[in-house]
Amino acid sequence: MPDLPKSVIFHDHGPREGFQIEDRHHPLPRRVALIEAIAAAGVPRIQAGSFVNPKLVPNMADSAEVFAAIKKRPGTRYTALALNPWGFEQALQVPQVDHYGSVVLYASNGFCLSNNNCTKQEARRRLRQWTELYDKHDVALEQVYVLSAFGCNFEGDVPLADVMEEVRHTVDLCREQGRALPRIDLDDSMGWADPHSIRQRVDAVREAYPELEIGLHLHDNRGLGGACVFAALEMGVRHFDSSIGGLGGCPFAPHKNRIAAGNICTEDMVHLCHELGIETGIDLDALIEAALLAEDIVGRPLMGRVMHSGSLAEYRTLSG
Amino acid sequence: MPDLPKSVIFHDHGPREGFQIEDRHHPLPRRVALIEAIAAAGVPRIQAGSFVNPKLVPNMADSAEVFAAIKKRPGTRYTALALNPWGFEQALQVPQVDHYGSVVLYASNGFCLSNNNCTKQEARRRLRQWTELYDKHDVALEQVYVLSAFGCNFEGDVPLADVMEEVRHTVDLCREQGRALPRIDLDDSMGWADPHSIRQRVDAVREAYPELEIGLHLHDNRGLGGACVFAALEMGVRHFDSSIGGLGGCPFAPHKNRIAAGNICTEDMVHLCHELGIETGIDLDALIEAALLAEDIVGRPLMGRVMHSGSLAEYRTLSG
Repeated sequence: MPDLPKSVIFHDHGPREGFQIEDRHHPLPRRVALIEAIAAAGVPRIQAGSFVNPKLVPNMADSAEVFAAIKKRPGTRYTALALNPWGFEQALQVPQVDHYGSVVLYASNGFCLSNNNCTKQEARRRLRQWTELYDKHDVALEQVYVLSAFGCNFEGDVPLADVMEEVRHTVDLCREQGRALPRIDLDDSMGWADPHSIRQRVDAVREAYPELEIGLHLHDNRGLGGACVFAALEMGVRHFDSSIGGLGGCPFAPHKNRIAAGNICTEDMVHLCHELGIETGIDLDALIEAALLAEDIVGRPLMGRVMHSGSLAEYRTLSG
Repeated sequence: MPDLPKSVIFHDHGPREGFQIEDRHHPLPRRVALIEAIAAAGVPRIQAGSFVNPKLVPNMADSAEVFAAIKKRPGTRYTALALNPWGFEQALQVPQVDHYGSVVLYASNGFCLSNNNCTKQEARRRLRQWTELYDKHDVALEQVYVLSAFGCNFEGDVPLADVMEEVRHTVDLCREQGRALPRIDLDDSMGWADPHSIRQRVDAVREAYPELEIGLHLHDNRGLGGACVFAALEMGVRHFDSSIGGLGGCPFAPHKNRIAAGNICTEDMVHLCHELGIETGIDLDALIEAALLAEDIVGRPLMGRVMHSGSLAEYRTLSG
């Protein structure tokens, strides 16, 4: 039966996941202004940049400067993505980064090879190395993502058992190391999830490991993002990655064979939560202004919806 | 508990609701090609045009020619919108129109005044006149829409009681006239619905009148369209109006105070149904091609999602 959470925590990946795929570099002050606007609206966690190979992702090459320029809002966490120890060491040099231990595993080998250039077994071995690296720097392992947890453009349907194997590996390793269990984030990297597969996978993880906190990282490739979040909310899931304005998707992208599409849209999902009576700590009207700023920066219409129609707040004053 | 329907019937309003708001007139052969492509994909009902004041809606002024040009597919219904007896008489002159009796009532007076230039009481009186007109021409009353059934930009929140009053009026009139009850379509004209209000209103109508068939006409102004359809599907609702590619919304529209936004996107919702195991009779890949044609006609990116990422069919062959 429905079991809505009292509150939900959004981690906005727009400034990183959105800008990294842009075909031009947007001015640093404008990207910083966007990060500050998202924070000012009350979004508690923002992925502000990444420390990755600047040849592969040139738009993120100035991430250290971005972090240094942000006027940080007390209570907001400004996170950075790192995919290897080199990147993490880079991030460690930047005092403004709020470090958190986050590692990716893969339910499908094909996506691991394409995205991480290694097998999923190798990704598991690296999880151990990451925990040791984090320990060395006193950073807690907070999150383990299981990527391609709902399907894979390289392998097709992904069996539930393959998802559970990665979850089990994580739990076993943490228990062996006497470490607090991280949150498990089921990642729908390629937009395969539907409300039933959300329920099936969240249920399976919860049944096997009731003590695990579960989060979702969803991409809205096929229009089911909102339905998936609604299904998850009714199971009490309260951690979602999302993206301001749905930034990251590109309506001009070629048809098919496009892996990256925008994350679920932060402000649309905040609107969903508020309509369902779930707290987010976010001012929706202020977040809509941030989404409009994001649209202005990229210079094309974003896929977010409520940003274009406005919230219901002003209309509701009509009915007292 | 979830009670998914075995099959769902989509009525695509894109060729009417989409093109009527375009700021230029698109060539008739292209619009006819789109209607034919939607039909070829298996969509059972298509609103192909309207017979309304050509000064107010110039883009629909050639609806008679559109209907005359369509190569009709057996089994598909090609419907037309008429808002007054004059329009209906016009439509009667066009042999290719598949007539069906459809009348609009309003849960809020403010939207009725704005949209229909009369009070909602007057709209009710006109329902009786419509039934007499339909009888005269041997057209069955199939559908009564209750507009602004979830909220109103002119009046704010709309009480459930105001929705139920329109439903009751319809049922009472039909019983008085010894007429089969039409389907009641709850219409979220301005994008106020959320999954809980969907449940609340569908539940209320069903409890009061278990014999009524219920349909939904939803606009996806605020990103909750898919979640609302999912909630409705789990209540067994099987009639939805929708729009190819989400046609009708315009990402370039000014922020706020914009009433029209696209209907829920047909092919995204077909994808949802298929993933949930619900039959639609529609070939999703063919429908995606139709959506791409719609995008090509209007010359700007449409808001549909699966049309840009492609269906999962080809990827699923990878997993056998």
